[in-house]
Amino acid sequence: MRATFLNCTLKPSPATSNTEVVAQIVMGGLEQRGVETELIRVVDYDVRPGVSSDEGGGDEWPGIRARIVASEILVVATPTWLGKPASIAQRVLERMDALLSETDDDGRPIAYNRVAGVVVTGNEDGAHHVIGEIAGGLIDIGFTVPGQAWTYWNMGPGPGPSYLETDHGHAWTRSTAEAAASNLFAVASALAERPIPAPPS
Amino acid sequence: MRATFLNCTLKPSPATSNTEVVAQIVMGGLEQRGVETELIRVVDYDVRPGVSSDEGGGDEWPGIRARIVASEILVVATPTWLGKPASIAQRVLERMDALLSETDDDGRPIAYNRVAGVVVTGNEDGAHHVIGEIAGGLIDIGFTVPGQAWTYWNMGPGPGPSYLETDHGHAWTRSTAEAAASNLFAVASALAERPIPAPPS
Amino acid sequence: MRATFLNCTLKPSPATSNTEVVAQIVMGGLEQRGVETELIRVVDYDVRPGVSSDEGGGDEWPGIRARIVASEILVVATPTWLGKPASIAQRVLERMDALLSETDDDGRPIAYNRVAGVVVTGNEDGAHHVIGEIAGGLIDIGFTVPGQAWTYWNMGPGPGPSYLETDHGHAWTRSTAEAAASNLFAVASALAERPIPAPPS
Amino acid sequence: MRATFLNCTLKPSPATSNTEVVAQIVMGGLEQRGVETELIRVVDYDVRPGVSSDEGGGDEWPGIRARIVASEILVVATPTWLGKPASIAQRVLERMDALLSETDDDGRPIAYNRVAGVVVTGNEDGAHHVIGEIAGGLIDIGFTVPGQAWTYWNMGPGPGPSYLETDHGHAWTRSTAEAAASNLFAVASALAERPIPAPPS
Repeated sequence: MRATFLNCTLKPSPATSNTEVVAQIVMGGLEQRGVETELIRVVDYDVRPGVSSDEGGGDEWPGIRARIVASEILVVATPTWLGKPASIAQRVLERMDALLSETDDDGRPIAYNRVAGVVVTGNEDGAHHVIGEIAGGLIDIGFTVPGQAWTYWNMGPGPGPSYLETDHGHAWTRSTAEAAASNLFAVASALAERPIPAPPS
Repeated sequence: MRATFLNCTLKPSPATSNTEVVAQIVMGGLEQRGVETELIRVVDYDVRPGVSSDEGGGDEWPGIRARIVASEILVVATPTWLGKPASIAQRVLERMDALLSETDDDGRPIAYNRVAGVVVTGNEDGAHHVIGEIAGGLIDIGFTVPGQAWTYWNMGPGPGPSYLETDHGHAWTRSTAEAAASNLFAVASALAERPIPAPPS
Repeated sequence: MRATFLNCTLKPSPATSNTEVVAQIVMGGLEQRGVETELIRVVDYDVRPGVSSDEGGGDEWPGIRARIVASEILVVATPTWLGKPASIAQRVLERMDALLSETDDDGRPIAYNRVAGVVVTGNEDGAHHVIGEIAGGLIDIGFTVPGQAWTYWNMGPGPGPSYLETDHGHAWTRSTAEAAASNLFAVASALAERPIPAPPS
Repeated sequence: MRATFLNCTLKPSPATSNTEVVAQIVMGGLEQRGVETELIRVVDYDVRPGVSSDEGGGDEWPGIRARIVASEILVVATPTWLGKPASIAQRVLERMDALLSETDDDGRPIAYNRVAGVVVTGNEDGAHHVIGEIAGGLIDIGFTVPGQAWTYWNMGPGPGPSYLETDHGHAWTRSTAEAAASNLFAVASALAERPIPAPPS
């Protein structure tokens, strides 16, 4: 089983990403269960604006798309800006919009029988909204979102430290991340054994 | 297998509910697959404000809660007001908040291994947001939301007719509802065979 | 000048409301500027489900509506449940939906030339989303929302103490509340002097 | 008085933008009132990811920022993708995040005494949510959002034609756009005459 993590931080490598540090807890939980994982920092690639699978002219989305399609588990990890998902996370959803109209040999939308989770960090407030926005988009595309397949870290009210600048709440974030890994693996395994059929036509 | 539908219209019985008419398409799809269904019009009951499982003094939530807990599938059906879920739908989420801290004999949150879907109607715009708000809340509580486990009907821009006042778009709503029934049944069946375990402690 | 505060806590009087304690900071700021204020705990009244100005049969919304219409400033104060506005806050928006189709003698929607703000509390995360949901609804109805006309208090990640159970972040909430009072008063005063005309027909 | 319109379509010039066509109705209404307007198609510029006013290395945000700061009125116009604001619109909000910590000579946040509106198009559903997301972000930054300072066009349920491919609902979109122009102008004028003071420190 394979899992692709898309880190939607605004900061190109090699800058430290708090979002990546939290995502790695979920990755660790999946690896313990034998899942092969890969993390892609999307901002390091030239992912063009658009809603097709290949916008041409050097667009680097096709490579990322191939990893998503080769994985049973997708995790979108994003920071929070103005209480909302990062523009990179919305870019990723826009590019996955094309999956809606592609089907496999059995007539199933490409995202069916794949599960998705969300990781959110922020130095203020907004994690649940960001989770809802991302999860809502992924469900539209056809991914199944297991219960409690997310974790987050933030600390209100108002602006404050980032994850790596404080120990506050790390234990909660960690145990929630461990549960997310367990739930993603369990539902992906259940769907592997007993897949969702093509919708009635 | 059992499915409970919560109709969150603001209109008490016996007023006609557009939301109920659309919900019935999903119910029909589940019944065809052998699922026993029940629809509860929540506004007909005295569901008290609060976040516990029983607010006392004649609170009628405990009866509704018992149906939810006895079902493998939950569908929240709601109209759209000011682009948002009806207050009755938010009331239902608030009352299910108590499920978060209850676990079964194996230490699993009560909502684990249950799946949830959403039905939305409105005479303007807002369905995707309402789906996202409801699905986000249900995922928080522990329900698994299958890909494309929703349907909706609305017609923008601006205020316009209700579902029963026009034929516009009924075919799309119906085929989407059929797909939602198929997907809810498939994921509920997969989780029945291979359940999500208790999260690591 | 008059300001009406709607406290949308789920807890009837005389239970202590954290939301009310934070709302009172904004109230104090308005009173210092000569504004007459009143706070209504909505859950203490029988506000019926519906979208008209009077749902009949003992509906107590008409009295609350009269206070709103007699005020230049409206503040909706709400706790956060499952990262969303309380059901009582959505109930209030639904009932104000009727204001959309009512106009004054000059053909202006009733809410024009009134300003609105938001106060949010919660023991976890979600304040910005709740502010956005409430402000979005109020703007739809016709209220003007001044910049930074809100304050909130919460503390993530995960569940934690309520406002009155900790001193964490009180200074930020207080200074933000003071700014909200200043901004609400300034924009209400500007619109009193130079009102928005009726929209072109 | 000046107004800057940011068109957040994903399509670079010279592709036709439905969003631009609707935005032009609001522009026309402002021009009739003597406002100087300018529309910037953001995707035509190299606006880097980040939350500072200048990300360096050829970042073209500083030029756009200068136009915003020179205007009393800002309108964010965006298509809807997966029911959410386009990634370009979120990019613009992220870059305006830096305005939060900049103040004028009187200690006022840069965005104070500026008003903002929203224009949304889409071939499905989601306009109110997009308006709420954008308006919420702008209010956070300090812009005042007048009542009904928005317009939109979409047509549900499910995917359908774009604005320019049908006449459905154009009259509603047009009259709402005219009202938005009137309301933006009125509140900007009121704040020009009687500005919001610096918040209490």
